[in-house]
Amino acid sequence: MENDQAAQDISKAERDGLYKIIMGRRDVRSQFLAKPIEDDKLVRILQAAHHAPSVGFMQPWNFMVIRSRQRRQEVLSLFEKANKEARDLFEGKKGDLYSRLKLQGILESPLNICVTCDRDRGGQVVLGRTHNRDTDLYSTVCAIQNLWLAARAEGIGVGWVSIFNDSELKQTLLIPEEIVPVAYLCLGYVSGFGDQPELEQKGWAKRLSLGDLVMFDQWQGENEDDPLVAELQKTVSGQDGQG
Amino acid sequence: MENDQAAQDISKAERDGLYKIIMGRRDVRSQFLAKPIEDDKLVRILQAAHHAPSVGFMQPWNFMVIRSRQRRQEVLSLFEKANKEARDLFEGKKGDLYSRLKLQGILESPLNICVTCDRDRGGQVVLGRTHNRDTDLYSTVCAIQNLWLAARAEGIGVGWVSIFNDSELKQTLLIPEEIVPVAYLCLGYVSGFGDQPELEQKGWAKRLSLGDLVMFDQWQGENEDDPLVAELQKTVSGQDGQG
Repeated sequence: MENDQAAQDISKAERDGLYKIIMGRRDVRSQFLAKPIEDDKLVRILQAAHHAPSVGFMQPWNFMVIRSRQRRQEVLSLFEKANKEARDLFEGKKGDLYSRLKLQGILESPLNICVTCDRDRGGQVVLGRTHNRDTDLYSTVCAIQNLWLAARAEGIGVGWVSIFNDSELKQTLLIPEEIVPVAYLCLGYVSGFGDQPELEQKGWAKRLSLGDLVMFDQWQGENEDDPLVAELQKTVSGQDGQG
Repeated sequence: MENDQAAQDISKAERDGLYKIIMGRRDVRSQFLAKPIEDDKLVRILQAAHHAPSVGFMQPWNFMVIRSRQRRQEVLSLFEKANKEARDLFEGKKGDLYSRLKLQGILESPLNICVTCDRDRGGQVVLGRTHNRDTDLYSTVCAIQNLWLAARAEGIGVGWVSIFNDSELKQTLLIPEEIVPVAYLCLGYVSGFGDQPELEQKGWAKRLSLGDLVMFDQWQGENEDDPLVAELQKTVSGQDGQG
């Protein structure tokens, strides 16, 4: 049942292609085009999501494909209400900048997808979820990241909108109590993908240095003798700039 | 700041390469080889993780690289204790099958990585996290999925071990109260990648049909006239078999 060429079966070009897709993926809010997404592409993107890892092979996800303009208008109203509440939490210059950021493309994108997690799908006891009840939510996020990368590879932008009161979103989409809406995504062709994340471009936050985020053998563990340290230092002025 | 060739900049070969990597990724427990992972590869894998999307560009993750055999032995003891508790929750044939499954490769793999989420990294108020406090955990999972795919592209297997009492794992790795260990990963070269997920091969669970997981415009919403339905039906006997 196994592949003899484990290490060799992905070519260097394919590996580099993956890195190009990962580095070039963006959270898109402003660049959506109205052009519809072809159904065969959409199925490939959903297949990629469905082939994510899941705890106990639970596959707890559903994909709610939302094209109805009326439904999207209702969801936009929920966002607008929640975003007003959110904006008021930021003070001074940060509040001014927040007001100028565009944080969703619900109507500009031709397609929205709500990705949910059915917490009961695997029955009462799920292998691997016995000690951390939230691993099914984590599996659902793995599916979302697969979807995001697949969309990017198809030239399609994705924006994750998280500023909702969950109970209102559930009511609008008729989502039952036991189901968790993990992500509300906007998908569409774009006028372009930014070189950097939009929040970096607009001065909201900076990319951290990878070397500062790596620890050895324990929390805040250091190991200056580990050759990985020198290798990480090369990234500071190198690949990190890829955005 | 934008790329003119938005839709065209990923070639068909690169796109197909991504799908090959996604479909060929496995949760590895039994096939690890002792061969160490080269530092430059490890840095590329960590860079891929670090370029995941994050709520408010918060980048809440840390990567604890664990090579110490003693530390891994301690972690293995925690797993063994928790797994005994877990096994007792499964009855009859399911319990017997559970006992025969290998669920970790903590010592067989040369490298473990604990990926954590620092919930305070972005300050008290984080853009996009105002209405769902857990979106920073979700960001961390996006980083984990990037790491997993990058490792697969490098010919390296990853296994996610989730059967721990979190408080014990935190104590062993000296992780402070406010930090969440989201994933404990085993990484290493492998003798091969299975054609199917191990839990599917061993009869624990079956892959669901993608068509059954897609809804239209609302929970359980159907739309037989949507051409996506026909497109999804093609997957039943097609790509789903790729495992």
